[in-house]
Amino acid sequence: MKIGLDVMGSDFAPDAVIEGAVDFLQKLSVDEKLVLIGDEGSIYRKLNEMQIEPSRFNIIHTTQVIEMADHPAKAFSQKKDSSIAVGYRMLKSGTLDGFCSAGNTGAMLVGASYTVNVIPGVFRPALITILPCVDNRDSVILDVGLNPDCKPDVLLQYGILGSIYAKYVLRIDNPSVGLLNIGEEDTKGTPSVKAAYELMKEHPGLNFAGNIEGNALFRENMTDVIVCDGFVGNIILKQAEAFHYIYKSRNLKDTYFDRLDFENVGGTPIVGINANVVIGHGVSKRRAIKNMILQTRAVVHANLAQKIKEAI
Amino acid sequence: MKIGLDVMGSDFAPDAVIEGAVDFLQKLSVDEKLVLIGDEGSIYRKLNEMQIEPSRFNIIHTTQVIEMADHPAKAFSQKKDSSIAVGYRMLKSGTLDGFCSAGNTGAMLVGASYTVNVIPGVFRPALITILPCVDNRDSVILDVGLNPDCKPDVLLQYGILGSIYAKYVLRIDNPSVGLLNIGEEDTKGTPSVKAAYELMKEHPGLNFAGNIEGNALFRENMTDVIVCDGFVGNIILKQAEAFHYIYKSRNLKDTYFDRLDFENVGGTPIVGINANVVIGHGVSKRRAIKNMILQTRAVVHANLAQKIKEAI
Repeated sequence: MKIGLDVMGSDFAPDAVIEGAVDFLQKLSVDEKLVLIGDEGSIYRKLNEMQIEPSRFNIIHTTQVIEMADHPAKAFSQKKDSSIAVGYRMLKSGTLDGFCSAGNTGAMLVGASYTVNVIPGVFRPALITILPCVDNRDSVILDVGLNPDCKPDVLLQYGILGSIYAKYVLRIDNPSVGLLNIGEEDTKGTPSVKAAYELMKEHPGLNFAGNIEGNALFRENMTDVIVCDGFVGNIILKQAEAFHYIYKSRNLKDTYFDRLDFENVGGTPIVGINANVVIGHGVSKRRAIKNMILQTRAVVHANLAQKIKEAI
Repeated sequence: MKIGLDVMGSDFAPDAVIEGAVDFLQKLSVDEKLVLIGDEGSIYRKLNEMQIEPSRFNIIHTTQVIEMADHPAKAFSQKKDSSIAVGYRMLKSGTLDGFCSAGNTGAMLVGASYTVNVIPGVFRPALITILPCVDNRDSVILDVGLNPDCKPDVLLQYGILGSIYAKYVLRIDNPSVGLLNIGEEDTKGTPSVKAAYELMKEHPGLNFAGNIEGNALFRENMTDVIVCDGFVGNIILKQAEAFHYIYKSRNLKDTYFDRLDFENVGGTPIVGINANVVIGHGVSKRRAIKNMILQTRAVVHANLAQKIKEAI
């Protein structure tokens, strides 16, 4: 099994990315290989400095970099020898089983749509992420930023995609699905959310738990899957980031609040495309990169893209 | 100056409400009077028990109660001698300068629209609330639940209403206004938010600071006013409630996280109607009630409804 890592992505690339890759080696099984994609000069220099034998990785040399500020679609099509473009081509050809990057998010999304493509039957892919629950469970929430406006059938399908993720990646049996809303009653919310409620209620394959309100997030009564549009999901995620930041700045110590650190989660998988892809935070450092690779492996092990193809 | 208090509203009414009213007495100026509206038997019994002279209040006896589970519009029109209906009539006639209740929110909103009415020129009233900032400032966010779907001109106007609130109630000079969005760039967000960005940017009366992301909430870079639709605002507020709950349950101690307690804020004013009205949380106890009355007084002192009338 081969996982591709974009060595040139993240504000702290390539060094922090290579450090994270080296840390991941401890978790590597014999049948697994991590493929470092990026400038080989930088890679050899850094590995030498860390006294790591380069043969422990596969190394694919690339000559271009999609910068954080680059226009995603333009950069993706013009920089054909960038680490992101090369990674996607390897993914598409089957040379890689999964690919992850903490680089230009837009370019990663362009690659997802134009190189590996959306799974037929999927209306809109989504970004899915883990919300750590105070009772030590992990829930997933989607979408967290791809589709700010969602039609009811898209929200319904997010419930299905999220359930598949929870079942095969998090190994939660018959995951409960909540529709994020501003009240528990089915008369609450936007027209789209109200219509989604009706669709989800009627769907036989969904363990629908009804509406879930904002004060249930992160708590004992949080469902295994939370469905919302990408605008709301993005705000929720970033608000949690804000509280984690405040928690740290106040010098508080707590094992739960520590879990809110995005570095522990590592990355955000794209669900609904024909391959296993995980996007990391642009400010990822060593630990976040290691966790992003671990998460990519978990998605590959679960055979997520294939499971979704079979279900849709 | 007379403030009306619905003694029958809140899950812990009437006792907790009367306790909060008694606590408020310490803050009362000579030219102010608190008007207790509700069952006089309960009021006299409780005041007697607390050894408080009833003449320190004005007491208006009512014989009906709008219950939390009642249908708002139906209950409001049928229970004409309920504390909420009577309070609104007194407000309309000018007998009261402000009115607050932690009772049936829907009925409070019905009263706002049908008894005191929306200010001409206001597209949609909003619920506004305070977000405590880690640097000890207070910001305001609106809407937090009245209008889940907002058109661009409504969002623009929320920027104006929020600025008036920040200026006259919180006494912030030239308050900065941020539009909540999922990225800083003006190309981000839903069509409605993108259009609102253009409107706000062009509006001469607004100190517009551009888009503000979720990770700036509660933090040093939070604007004085945050504009969003009622769906997103409601989720933000309740997510903060969830984190405050978790903070308490983990036995952490921190002066900032203590400020997140809704009981310290007390209530949510309705802006954009012809009167000063504050709605409290249904689970309000003694301290929350006292703070709701204090907030109502602040709104009355600022002459908020009149200030909005003049500005719109």
